[in-house]
Amino acid sequence: MKKQFLTVLAFLVGLGIPVLAKGPAKEIKLLQPEHSKGKIVLQAMKDRHSSREFADKQLDIQTLSELLWAAGGINREDGRRTFPTAMNAQEIDIYVFMKDGVYLYVPQENKLTLVLSGDKRAATGNQAFVADAAVNLVYVSDLAKIRGNDDNWKMLMTAVNIGHSSENVYLYCSSADLACVVRAFIDGPAVAKLLKLKDSQKIIIGLSVGYKK
Amino acid sequence: MKKQFLTVLAFLVGLGIPVLAKGPAKEIKLLQPEHSKGKIVLQAMKDRHSSREFADKQLDIQTLSELLWAAGGINREDGRRTFPTAMNAQEIDIYVFMKDGVYLYVPQENKLTLVLSGDKRAATGNQAFVADAAVNLVYVSDLAKIRGNDDNWKMLMTAVNIGHSSENVYLYCSSADLACVVRAFIDGPAVAKLLKLKDSQKIIIGLSVGYKK
Repeated sequence: MKKQFLTVLAFLVGLGIPVLAKGPAKEIKLLQPEHSKGKIVLQAMKDRHSSREFADKQLDIQTLSELLWAAGGINREDGRRTFPTAMNAQEIDIYVFMKDGVYLYVPQENKLTLVLSGDKRAATGNQAFVADAAVNLVYVSDLAKIRGNDDNWKMLMTAVNIGHSSENVYLYCSSADLACVVRAFIDGPAVAKLLKLKDSQKIIIGLSVGYKK
Repeated sequence: MKKQFLTVLAFLVGLGIPVLAKGPAKEIKLLQPEHSKGKIVLQAMKDRHSSREFADKQLDIQTLSELLWAAGGINREDGRRTFPTAMNAQEIDIYVFMKDGVYLYVPQENKLTLVLSGDKRAATGNQAFVADAAVNLVYVSDLAKIRGNDDNWKMLMTAVNIGHSSENVYLYCSSADLACVVRAFIDGPAVAKLLKLKDSQKIIIGLSVGYKK
């Protein structure tokens, strides 16, 4: 029996088929948001608040999909997004730190692509709750994608743009009854090193999201 | 007849009652938002977009009230707001440029207070549509209200916070079918001079809002 198993295993490996693969999925296909479910805009604003207490439970795929679409999905045929960027620079990538690994959100294909295996959530902040949140979003702004020469001005503009996305996350969380908090305290250079970013890619804030405790 | 009129006028002036007052209202009492009207959050995000074409028509008081409440109203009994600010600094004042004058939004009393008489909308931007929009919002951030010593960091934080408010405006406009655009091009120092701001008060962006053309 063991011999048979090893024979089959050798055969599959020989064919280049992944066998007994461990670790997180290399790619996570996301679902379409359900636009008709949730709260009215003004009600979601009434209920919006920051919460730092998260349940130890991963987000289901529909919730994760809607969260990321709110944060930065494509909402028009010309590729424009759910949140505005100055001069439509679209300079912001969203990295998603989860229990299994770190993923890059690819809104054009409505999917997540694995960047790093393993639980790196705690690397995105020094507050204890950060490691508990099912998802930590890290915004990465590539200043090279913004026209102009003044890096201080570019940083201010991308900070405003990040705020646009971050508020979408807050309102989605309010609507879907999730806990959420934006975090000004993040070691940008350390996370940039972990993600092997280019010099032009900057990190300003992080966001923790999860089910309520 | 003229003599009688003048006698009455003199009497009223003597009592300190404003007579034949010209110009804009010194104060505008705002209404409560109707939280149950409008679009579902994800639908409002689907429809969100920037628009630079505005009808030549002032906002009705209910719409103006809801717009400002979305931008920065108080949504909890402890005085917290519809949008988050880092460390709850609440460093941002919202100035409202309308046809009759410039007002300061006072969320604690749900009212507008006159700051300057006259139509100063064009002062908030050099694009032609700015003067057409019924309302131009200007965010004024008082860095003195943010803890810490690093003004560059404070500017980045308040820029994120402004983005939070600005996205609330976008989503309210999407929900209420209004035109809206955030504007990175604003002569901050010139507007600060017009508003007689303190040195610690900074302007980063403006927002134009109005009925669709």
